[in-house]
Amino acid sequence: MEEVAERLERQIRFIIEIDQMKHILRRNLVIDGSRRENDAEHSWHLALMAMILSEYAEEEVELSKVIKMVLMHDLVEVYAGDTFCYDAEGGKDKEEREKLAAEKLFSILPCDQGEELKLLWFEFEERKTPEAKFAACLDRLQPLLNNYHTNGGTWVEYDVSSEQVYKRMEAIEDASTVLGEYARKIIEDSIRKGILKR
Amino acid sequence: MEEVAERLERQIRFIIEIDQMKHILRRNLVIDGSRRENDAEHSWHLALMAMILSEYAEEEVELSKVIKMVLMHDLVEVYAGDTFCYDAEGGKDKEEREKLAAEKLFSILPCDQGEELKLLWFEFEERKTPEAKFAACLDRLQPLLNNYHTNGGTWVEYDVSSEQVYKRMEAIEDASTVLGEYARKIIEDSIRKGILKR
Repeated sequence: MEEVAERLERQIRFIIEIDQMKHILRRNLVIDGSRRENDAEHSWHLALMAMILSEYAEEEVELSKVIKMVLMHDLVEVYAGDTFCYDAEGGKDKEEREKLAAEKLFSILPCDQGEELKLLWFEFEERKTPEAKFAACLDRLQPLLNNYHTNGGTWVEYDVSSEQVYKRMEAIEDASTVLGEYARKIIEDSIRKGILKR
Repeated sequence: MEEVAERLERQIRFIIEIDQMKHILRRNLVIDGSRRENDAEHSWHLALMAMILSEYAEEEVELSKVIKMVLMHDLVEVYAGDTFCYDAEGGKDKEEREKLAAEKLFSILPCDQGEELKLLWFEFEERKTPEAKFAACLDRLQPLLNNYHTNGGTWVEYDVSSEQVYKRMEAIEDASTVLGEYARKIIEDSIRKGILKR
């Protein structure tokens, strides 16, 4: 019982610690445009998208793994903060910062679970397995939808070009032809509407 | 291709629609006490808790089903709104309101997926299968942790008694002895600290 108590104590501590995800703001807005989205909301939305869109994954994926991956892929930001995807400066030491954050955060958990999450996060970051590729695909598609439905959102605010967006979208095409084509249509339509500069 | 396009269009429409979960406020606060929590954040937190705590489920559970269930268990609130668990008046027509909301929301999706989510939601509501019981257990444990870590939170604000909280906690003990004991300790400690009235 003593051991259970200590194990559970660590698990609960971790659960409390990650509540901070609700305060880590991303650049993109929520779809009604009223405010910026936070990491917890973003992760939840990706998980639901995985449930709905997994049929379009080019390679067969283990859906439950994709869901777990997107639920935890941004956890390191609890300590490392969010790095804007078009921020070249912040991107430079992103990997280092996030690795340190992962060590700190996952070590709160019992070893077996901390190790499991760390491996899952590394797998996501490497983007080599079908699950990691599809998780990355969703992680690109969601802000695309958000920007499209908020009159350009961060594209307008940060003067992002269609070239930059097309570049980010490669991860979508890489994992799914159908979703890749859909993304391409959205980008073209955004340019036409003048909410994304050519 | 025409069929794929229509199917995908419905799926994307659903994904956009459920963004509203980010605006549906629950009564309880986030753990730093700065504001109320929304449904998207709550659902994300439960899914992570499922990943961490499933070992304590009394009956064996299919973890991926529990995760899907908690991710979608509150979706009907997009149309039905959040009903405070200690609101006897609002509780009266809750079932009816939520059933109508489920019909409306899940019919946005392609039939097969809408049906799947509806069944999963009914299963959660009935609380009979091991997965539904464990999902309910997490759904009770999370606000307990929140209230405990925010000096009583909604217990204090809405003058909730320990008797009412003990009653809500039956779903925890029902699904997990270990988590049930833990919840009991938290309640006792909350009474001792004066953040929950005897």
